[in-house]
Amino acid sequence: MANLVTLTTDFGDSQGCVGIMKGVMACINLNVKFIDMAHDIPSHDVFHAAFVLKTAYRYFPEGTVHLAVVDPGVGGSRRPIAVRTDRYYFVGPDNGLFTYIYGENEFDAREITEAKYTLGVDSTTFDGRDIFAPVAAYLSLGVSIEQFGQEMSDPVRLDIYRPEYGKGLIKGHVIHIDQFGNLITDIERDKSEQVMDFRDVRIRAGDLVIERVSGAYSDGPPGEPVCVWGSHGHLEVAVSQGRAVDSIEGMGRGAEVFVQANE
Amino acid sequence: MANLVTLTTDFGDSQGCVGIMKGVMACINLNVKFIDMAHDIPSHDVFHAAFVLKTAYRYFPEGTVHLAVVDPGVGGSRRPIAVRTDRYYFVGPDNGLFTYIYGENEFDAREITEAKYTLGVDSTTFDGRDIFAPVAAYLSLGVSIEQFGQEMSDPVRLDIYRPEYGKGLIKGHVIHIDQFGNLITDIERDKSEQVMDFRDVRIRAGDLVIERVSGAYSDGPPGEPVCVWGSHGHLEVAVSQGRAVDSIEGMGRGAEVFVQANE
Amino acid sequence: MANLVTLTTDFGDSQGCVGIMKGVMACINLNVKFIDMAHDIPSHDVFHAAFVLKTAYRYFPEGTVHLAVVDPGVGGSRRPIAVRTDRYYFVGPDNGLFTYIYGENEFDAREITEAKYTLGVDSTTFDGRDIFAPVAAYLSLGVSIEQFGQEMSDPVRLDIYRPEYGKGLIKGHVIHIDQFGNLITDIERDKSEQVMDFRDVRIRAGDLVIERVSGAYSDGPPGEPVCVWGSHGHLEVAVSQGRAVDSIEGMGRGAEVFVQANE
Repeated sequence: MANLVTLTTDFGDSQGCVGIMKGVMACINLNVKFIDMAHDIPSHDVFHAAFVLKTAYRYFPEGTVHLAVVDPGVGGSRRPIAVRTDRYYFVGPDNGLFTYIYGENEFDAREITEAKYTLGVDSTTFDGRDIFAPVAAYLSLGVSIEQFGQEMSDPVRLDIYRPEYGKGLIKGHVIHIDQFGNLITDIERDKSEQVMDFRDVRIRAGDLVIERVSGAYSDGPPGEPVCVWGSHGHLEVAVSQGRAVDSIEGMGRGAEVFVQANE
Repeated sequence: MANLVTLTTDFGDSQGCVGIMKGVMACINLNVKFIDMAHDIPSHDVFHAAFVLKTAYRYFPEGTVHLAVVDPGVGGSRRPIAVRTDRYYFVGPDNGLFTYIYGENEFDAREITEAKYTLGVDSTTFDGRDIFAPVAAYLSLGVSIEQFGQEMSDPVRLDIYRPEYGKGLIKGHVIHIDQFGNLITDIERDKSEQVMDFRDVRIRAGDLVIERVSGAYSDGPPGEPVCVWGSHGHLEVAVSQGRAVDSIEGMGRGAEVFVQANE
Repeated sequence: MANLVTLTTDFGDSQGCVGIMKGVMACINLNVKFIDMAHDIPSHDVFHAAFVLKTAYRYFPEGTVHLAVVDPGVGGSRRPIAVRTDRYYFVGPDNGLFTYIYGENEFDAREITEAKYTLGVDSTTFDGRDIFAPVAAYLSLGVSIEQFGQEMSDPVRLDIYRPEYGKGLIKGHVIHIDQFGNLITDIERDKSEQVMDFRDVRIRAGDLVIERVSGAYSDGPPGEPVCVWGSHGHLEVAVSQGRAVDSIEGMGRGAEVFVQANE
C-alpha cells in the first residue's frame, strides 16, 4: 500500500477542519502520509473540485486514496461513497465530485454503510471527520472496498458540457477558471488536432478574436489576450501578465469558445 | 512517542514562517511529522485560535504536541508556556490560547525558561521559530515537561462567556464564526437536553425566530435561516446555502442567542 | 540524504497544483517528505519569493532541496536551473528567485537539460510539474547535480537595492511587506551597529520620525508606529497592533528609510 491520502476540500485554513480529519486518520493508521490537494475550493463548488480531481489524480503513486469533501448536502439524503479504479481509491459524498473519474475509468462504487468503519458519533454536519476520513484511513490500511457497503450502479454525475469537434469548427465552453484568472475550456488538444490543422486557426471568445495558439502565457505584450494548450491538454484563453477572467467581458464558466479553421 | 506536532497560527501562507518553524523542528527531530491545523486564524485573534484548539485537540493520537502561535504580545512580558495533560502536550505563548484545555483537563503548566531547549538567538519578534518550535520538537522526542522550567499555577485564561441553562430558557452567545459564516454558540447539546425537550422549542437570535433544530444545513430553501447541532456539539445558527454572519443583522461574536421551550 | 523538499510557489490552494507536484515527487521517491514554505506568494512576484527564500533556507537540515516555482516566464526562453550550495539544493526557473542565495554562498548552478530527469510531456505551461518537481525528487534521492546539465556561470540576479552604511547616517529601503503589514527594510543589524550607537538614533520613513528602536511590536499604545529589529536581523517599521503598510503614507516596496545618529 502507498499509505498516501490526498485531501481536496472547501474548508479553508482557518478552522482546523482539515487538521481534525488528518488526526482521525492518524489514529487509525499512524503510517499514513498526507498530501493536500486543495482546500480553498470555492465554498460548495462541486464543479470546481471535480475539475481539480480530474487534472490531478493520475500523478500519484498506485494505491493512493483521494479523499474529497465539498459537501453542500451534508446531513441530507446524499449518500457517502467509496470508489475503486484500476490504480486509485476515491472517498467523499456522492454528489458528482467524481464525475470525470467515472468517465475515464472502469470503477467499483460502494455506498458506505458499514458503521464499524466510521466514528459513529451523533453528528450530521461534519461527515468529513465522522465518515470520509475514517474510511480513507481504512482504505490506506488495505481494507477491501467491498467491506464498506453494497455496490452502487448509479453514482451521481454532474451535468457537464460536451464540446463539439466539427470539421473546420470546434465549439467548446469555459469549464474552469484557475488562480491566475486563465479561462480553461473543455476543448482537448488530441481530439482537436484530429479535425483541424492548428497552424492556421482563429479562436473566438465573446467579442474577442485570437489569431493563433501560442507556446507561452507570456507570448505578446502585457495585457494581450493569448491562447495556449494548458498543462492538462485543454485550450486556455489567457491574458499576458494579466487575468483573462477580469479583462474579457462575459467569460465566466459556461461561456462558449469557438475554434475555426482558416481556409 | 507519536512524533506528531500540529501547528495553529495566524501566519498565513505567504511568508514562509510556518515552513521555518517546521525546518527548525526537523533539525531537532528528523522523524517528526507535522499536521497543519490552521494558519489563517484572523491576525492576533486569540479567541478564535482557542476555539479551534478546543474543537480539534481530542482527535489526535496520544502524545501529540499541539503547537500554537497567535501571539500579539511577542517580545513583551507574556511568558512562553508548555502544558501537559493526560494525553497531549501544548506549547505557545501564555495568553489564553489554552483556556478551554485548562477547563476540560487536569494539567501541568510550565514556564519555558531553560535556554538549552531554545535556539538562543538575539531576536524578540519570532518566538515561534526561536522558542516554541524547538520546545515542541524536544517534547516530540520525549523530553519531559519538567525539563523546560518551573510549574505555573496561574496560566492566563480568556474571559469567555458562560451560557445559562435555565428551566425552559437557555441563554447563550455566539462564540465563533466558521468559514461558511455559520454562527457557533456556546450552547452545548448535552447540557441543553437536560433542561429542555428540543422537539418543541423556538430559538431567538437578534430579530430572528427559528422554530426548530434541523438535522442539516440544507434543510429548507436557499437563504432560509436554520439551527443545527454542529459537529462540536454546539448549537449553530446557519443560513441554507448562505452565510448567516452576513445575512443576519448584528450577529457577530458575543451576540446573545436564546432557546425557549414552547409550552 | 535528508529526503526533505520544501515548496515555495504562487499557486495558492484552490487548484491542486502543489498537490500534483508532490504526487510527481512521491512517484519518484516514495520516502520524500514535504515542507510547505509559502504558496500565497503574490502572483508572479519573484522579489517577494526571493526574500522568503533568503529568510528561510538556513533553518533546514543539511541536504534539504528547496523547490521554488514563481514563474511568470514559463514556456518562454528562461532556463530551468538547479543549484547546489555547501548545505542545500535549489530548483526552479532561472529568473532571480535565488539572488540572495548566490550572494550568501559559494554555489554550483546547472541548466537543467537532461530529459531523462523530467516528465517529458508535451506541455509548456506547468514546468513545476514537468521539470522542477521531478528534478527536486531526483536530488532528494541523491542524484548528483552534475547529472542535470551544464554549469551556468551567469544565473539571473534580481536588481536589488543596496543600503548605504555611512558614519552617522544609514540609508536603506523597504524590500518586503509581511503578513501583518510590517515594512521590512534592507538595513541589517550587524552592519548598522558597526557605524552607529543605536541607543540614540532617530528613524525617518516618509513623513514619519521614530525616536528609537523598540524591543517588541507591542511597545507603545495601539496605532503608534514603532521600529524593531525583526526576526531576520533587518530593521522593520511597524505599527503597534496595526498595519504599517496601510497607515503610513507612501511606504510600499522601494520606499527609502533613513537612520540618523543623534549628536
